[in-house]
Amino acid sequence: MARLHVPIRLRWSDLDAYGHVNNVEMLRLLEEARIQAFWASDEVTDEDAVGSSTAVLDSSPGADTLSFMARQEIEYLVPIPYTRQPLDIQMWFGRLGGASLEICYVVCSPIGVEPFVEYARAATTIVLVDAKTQRPRRIGDRERAAWTPFLDEPLTFIKR
Amino acid sequence: MARLHVPIRLRWSDLDAYGHVNNVEMLRLLEEARIQAFWASDEVTDEDAVGSSTAVLDSSPGADTLSFMARQEIEYLVPIPYTRQPLDIQMWFGRLGGASLEICYVVCSPIGVEPFVEYARAATTIVLVDAKTQRPRRIGDRERAAWTPFLDEPLTFIKR
Amino acid sequence: MARLHVPIRLRWSDLDAYGHVNNVEMLRLLEEARIQAFWASDEVTDEDAVGSSTAVLDSSPGADTLSFMARQEIEYLVPIPYTRQPLDIQMWFGRLGGASLEICYVVCSPIGVEPFVEYARAATTIVLVDAKTQRPRRIGDRERAAWTPFLDEPLTFIKR
Amino acid sequence: MARLHVPIRLRWSDLDAYGHVNNVEMLRLLEEARIQAFWASDEVTDEDAVGSSTAVLDSSPGADTLSFMARQEIEYLVPIPYTRQPLDIQMWFGRLGGASLEICYVVCSPIGVEPFVEYARAATTIVLVDAKTQRPRRIGDRERAAWTPFLDEPLTFIKR
Repeated sequence: MARLHVPIRLRWSDLDAYGHVNNVEMLRLLEEARIQAFWASDEVTDEDAVGSSTAVLDSSPGADTLSFMARQEIEYLVPIPYTRQPLDIQMWFGRLGGASLEICYVVCSPIGVEPFVEYARAATTIVLVDAKTQRPRRIGDRERAAWTPFLDEPLTFIKR
Repeated sequence: MARLHVPIRLRWSDLDAYGHVNNVEMLRLLEEARIQAFWASDEVTDEDAVGSSTAVLDSSPGADTLSFMARQEIEYLVPIPYTRQPLDIQMWFGRLGGASLEICYVVCSPIGVEPFVEYARAATTIVLVDAKTQRPRRIGDRERAAWTPFLDEPLTFIKR
Repeated sequence: MARLHVPIRLRWSDLDAYGHVNNVEMLRLLEEARIQAFWASDEVTDEDAVGSSTAVLDSSPGADTLSFMARQEIEYLVPIPYTRQPLDIQMWFGRLGGASLEICYVVCSPIGVEPFVEYARAATTIVLVDAKTQRPRRIGDRERAAWTPFLDEPLTFIKR
Repeated sequence: MARLHVPIRLRWSDLDAYGHVNNVEMLRLLEEARIQAFWASDEVTDEDAVGSSTAVLDSSPGADTLSFMARQEIEYLVPIPYTRQPLDIQMWFGRLGGASLEICYVVCSPIGVEPFVEYARAATTIVLVDAKTQRPRRIGDRERAAWTPFLDEPLTFIKR
């Protein structure tokens, strides 16, 4: 099963007054993972960059393509305490459709830290939109080729 | 159909670089709506408070009960532009279980503003946890009595 | 002494793991107060709007003018607990220069709540920039007329 | 001049609707830099950790010491665009008093990226507070020894 492993660091401000990572902020971590894994960048790639082969989507403001978030679903399994080690966000595609795609995530404890904990699982559906026409546009050949190696069964949710 | 209407104001910082309310921040708006509608408060209620009859849950830090977020699901229908009028977040219970409950939301344009827009629909499942034992505790009689008038069919999702 | 009184509601997420309003979030509250007090809006003003006479600056994205933040200074006097009543942010101009202006703030407990507490004092310097030329542009006659009634002595800082 | 260099990554959500790092979020970056540089951690230090010699303050929730933020001052020099490389936040102590200390910051472009840009300069004053008595407590010998190598002239502000 080919999965991307995106290391995402917490910020102390991700904690809320309960002392755990806030449930809303967890979707912020997914947003960061998505950007690191799939957005193209002109910048010289630094050592710990991930997903260089999958980072082919130019979706920044001003670009030709907009990523429109269509839906999100997340299950919280274990509260996340503050840690300085980057969480290991495992990602794959649960579906590559015509103009839309589903990204699956499992939020895990930092690599190398024992015991292993699965904190959350989530899925988001994104529609690619042409910035000029504001209409959905098909996933391109280059994008599909880059992403297909990480296409797998959709995530199974436990609590739905 | 009995629904709570919770007015939630945007902050300018809810917008992201695309100029719309960020998809993660939209869950922040739901969090605020939930707190205003269901958390008890010792404070004198001001004029525009909502849900005074349903605000019976003492879930603040240090209280006897913790609200543990178990899952969230959200569908984004129309991007939300910046507006100064408070959004109208319509809420009801889709389920009142033993220790858990499902809250349903429809995020709508400000009351009185034309045309009416349904921006998003969402559902969250919350488990009540005893702060001391850290174990789920049953919904109490007073809570159930306060919330039952807003119990209705669960939200129908379009894009699942 | 003519001061604007801008009511700003906390969000629960403004608290950090210490259980008080986070020191960074306090500047977010100032940002909101500034926008409510000085940014023009096409929307019908709702009842509790403030600063309608001073809200003459069209500084939204896409507008002719950008507000460039040049500096901020803030003193934290008392930690802010969670409250549902809107804080009373008192504001005035400490200086109206050619293209720049200084806004002064005193963050106070909600109006009508005893005892009165002064939580923080702050000042920010803003430069008006022409969006096309990206160069500073002078404060206009209409803006100066609207803002001069709230021009007063600059804030005195205690801890500098 | 001994300065700490703390690498701080942006999140895409640090940008606001203007497409630059929001002026409030910049203080969030300073918060992160401060925590990485000065807070003690039980965790095994990962490779790119900084300030291991200065990270001696146990100021997490539940710890004996609270860090109370007394004041902050920041000058914004150049807007920060989105970048994936971590910014280089240079830090030192401008003053080590009895119970309070001043931290100085210069927010710079990522190390190795040309041209070098100084985006902002800032200073914050922090008071160490005993968690039990809630009163200021003196900087300890171990803390002073760890921090003195990075004691230097306070930052000079340009726009005050």
